[in-house]
Amino acid sequence: MDTQAAHEVPETTDTPGAESGVHGYSKQKDQHLKRLRRIEGQIRGLQRMVEEDVYCIDILTQVSAGTKALQAFALSLLEEHLKHCVAAAVEQGGPEADAKVSEATAAIARLLRS
Amino acid sequence: MDTQAAHEVPETTDTPGAESGVHGYSKQKDQHLKRLRRIEGQIRGLQRMVEEDVYCIDILTQVSAGTKALQAFALSLLEEHLKHCVAAAVEQGGPEADAKVSEATAAIARLLRS
Amino acid sequence: MDTQAAHEVPETTDTPGAESGVHGYSKQKDQHLKRLRRIEGQIRGLQRMVEEDVYCIDILTQVSAGTKALQAFALSLLEEHLKHCVAAAVEQGGPEADAKVSEATAAIARLLRS
Amino acid sequence: MDTQAAHEVPETTDTPGAESGVHGYSKQKDQHLKRLRRIEGQIRGLQRMVEEDVYCIDILTQVSAGTKALQAFALSLLEEHLKHCVAAAVEQGGPEADAKVSEATAAIARLLRS
Repeated sequence: MDTQAAHEVPETTDTPGAESGVHGYSKQKDQHLKRLRRIEGQIRGLQRMVEEDVYCIDILTQVSAGTKALQAFALSLLEEHLKHCVAAAVEQGGPEADAKVSEATAAIARLLRS
Repeated sequence: MDTQAAHEVPETTDTPGAESGVHGYSKQKDQHLKRLRRIEGQIRGLQRMVEEDVYCIDILTQVSAGTKALQAFALSLLEEHLKHCVAAAVEQGGPEADAKVSEATAAIARLLRS
Repeated sequence: MDTQAAHEVPETTDTPGAESGVHGYSKQKDQHLKRLRRIEGQIRGLQRMVEEDVYCIDILTQVSAGTKALQAFALSLLEEHLKHCVAAAVEQGGPEADAKVSEATAAIARLLRS
Repeated sequence: MDTQAAHEVPETTDTPGAESGVHGYSKQKDQHLKRLRRIEGQIRGLQRMVEEDVYCIDILTQVSAGTKALQAFALSLLEEHLKHCVAAAVEQGGPEADAKVSEATAAIARLLRS
């Protein structure tokens, strides 16, 4: 709830004339979905490879490609989050701004460890 | 072609009475496919999250989970590869054994960098 | 030069009575140096392990600890960077703010790939 | 003790006329030490950067370089371990061989997560 409210970029500043409640990543929504559909295809490709007894090393190479694609998606989402949600919190100031940065750093730490 | 031949565990040693050409990971094929289907579900879950404008940080957390699941799949595949394909090459001896280990190490390097 | 200027937190806001040109991470400088000295100790420990022919797997475990410590250092530096340098750029507004976020995202991408 | 014995490459096969107890990685010992000393230099470089208030992003770039160097060291150690210790266990056969592979896989998992 709280976070829900906090990461909404105020319509007036950023998206004049837009529908209400536009999130930081909404503008690139189609691009994100396209990326994720391609990753879904990679995962299904992995299933076919396992079913067809493809050589282990070739499967591992495809896993690396899938992981890389997932991380590229995460990075583009993170960049938007910093440019919109975190920037909006910083502009408003107060302890909320630091909390937003700490939250983003924790997410980056999880990405690094995964 | 070459690799195709090389990673086949000779039927007689490893899988007496089995169908021909059983790969190292074939025994756990069902388990691998189950894992991959779960990962596919995670990726589709990510698409839903983007479509429903879920908070960026929550999406990133789900990405980390997906990456972790992919790496767990890679590790179980790698372990089987070492136990079967690489071990078979080592038992046969010769330069092929070292080549198999180098190939596996290169795959691990790709996983580390992804 | 440009970046030099941009990541300086204005003295008056943040460090009253301080020397000029205090960077975002200066406050935790001692903590950072302490962390890095501990990592240096871990690397020297690795050298001793190699010299004393310690078992490979035990050395690899120590490498993982060193990598983790380096990444923890990177994350704390990154958090400060976002809280100070990037936040300052956001407050000033303009294209510089987005440039700072893109720069930080590129650094995170490098950390993810390393 | 047990592991100690298991990862010793029998002198006669691999290192004729050598001193006893040569480990898998002993041949490249000098190369490993050289690598580690370079990494130690990188860590000291990081300390200087922090002391001299170098720009955060430039420090993060150097951290990525250090992490990459540590992982390259780990990979070369791992490759030797597989070629010598694990291969020796495989040649002897028995449950020890599988245990060695599982141990190596666990080490790789730690590297991936760090």
